[in-house]
Amino acid sequence: MNQGGISPFLIQELPGFAPQISGLVVMMNYARYTTLAAVQGLTTNELDYLHDAQSNTIASLLGHIAAVELAYQVDTFERRGLTAKERQQWGAFLELGEKARRDIRGHPLDYYLQVLSDVREKTVSELARRTDDWLYEQTPFWGYQPANNYFKWFHVFEDEINHRGQIRWLRKRLPR
Amino acid sequence: MNQGGISPFLIQELPGFAPQISGLVVMMNYARYTTLAAVQGLTTNELDYLHDAQSNTIASLLGHIAAVELAYQVDTFERRGLTAKERQQWGAFLELGEKARRDIRGHPLDYYLQVLSDVREKTVSELARRTDDWLYEQTPFWGYQPANNYFKWFHVFEDEINHRGQIRWLRKRLPR
Repeated sequence: MNQGGISPFLIQELPGFAPQISGLVVMMNYARYTTLAAVQGLTTNELDYLHDAQSNTIASLLGHIAAVELAYQVDTFERRGLTAKERQQWGAFLELGEKARRDIRGHPLDYYLQVLSDVREKTVSELARRTDDWLYEQTPFWGYQPANNYFKWFHVFEDEINHRGQIRWLRKRLPR
Repeated sequence: MNQGGISPFLIQELPGFAPQISGLVVMMNYARYTTLAAVQGLTTNELDYLHDAQSNTIASLLGHIAAVELAYQVDTFERRGLTAKERQQWGAFLELGEKARRDIRGHPLDYYLQVLSDVREKTVSELARRTDDWLYEQTPFWGYQPANNYFKWFHVFEDEINHRGQIRWLRKRLPR
């Protein structure tokens, strides 16, 4: 929990970030900390374990967490959709399901940790450059209702927490 | 999503709440909206379905979500722990596991929706009476590190989202 010795349980201003963005970063950091704790020490076989025919592997859930974050970087920082190349690279992680079950296999935990870390590094450096006013900028979103950037980044970490709940569930059921 | 016609995807000031507390309430409301969507239409048998010997039922996860919120009401609004009576009433929900598997059965969905709604009503009315300064008040927390009330209420909704992820997982695997 890289907060320079500050308690991770304080939503407050962080050095280098606008006040409201600070709170968002604390929440994102805490969510990530718990995700990493949930997968600590897992082997490649455990990451790739399929609980049942419709299940996602822990590996693909980790990739999904990174892919969702990347998609919202592109949406909120660059105001565009994914390119064809990005969609090819991240599609299996974004969509999960059949394609993920088939294609995402054989990587050790460090591979996913690196992907998560690379994507997060970009998020944090972009957020550090923005003002709180940016958080409240709106665009049409699900069902054409307006969403602001604050909500979109809340959604990124709430999707991560949702899948962390599933990762914890799956981890308890790995074959011994 | 009771926000008076305002898009649920805007983290912004709400009438009747301090500015920072507003953001928290929007996030809590959204988390709750997705929890309720995840259980919509479930029968008592489905709520009580045990996926495997170490699983929690959806019923007990719903009760857990309400119980965690109640425990943090007592902690943050009243600065006390649970009384023996409260612990007796809410213990199975709080601790989940064996006791919940044994004792929590036979209630229809409406029962849990009412419990969730009653607890939430109290949270919202208490939050409406508080200033943003209150959010930043600190007490010792996990591992004796300081936590502020903002973090504690973030934790309440992030625990809900974690279990919502599990509820979605379990719902997909209910026997037909």
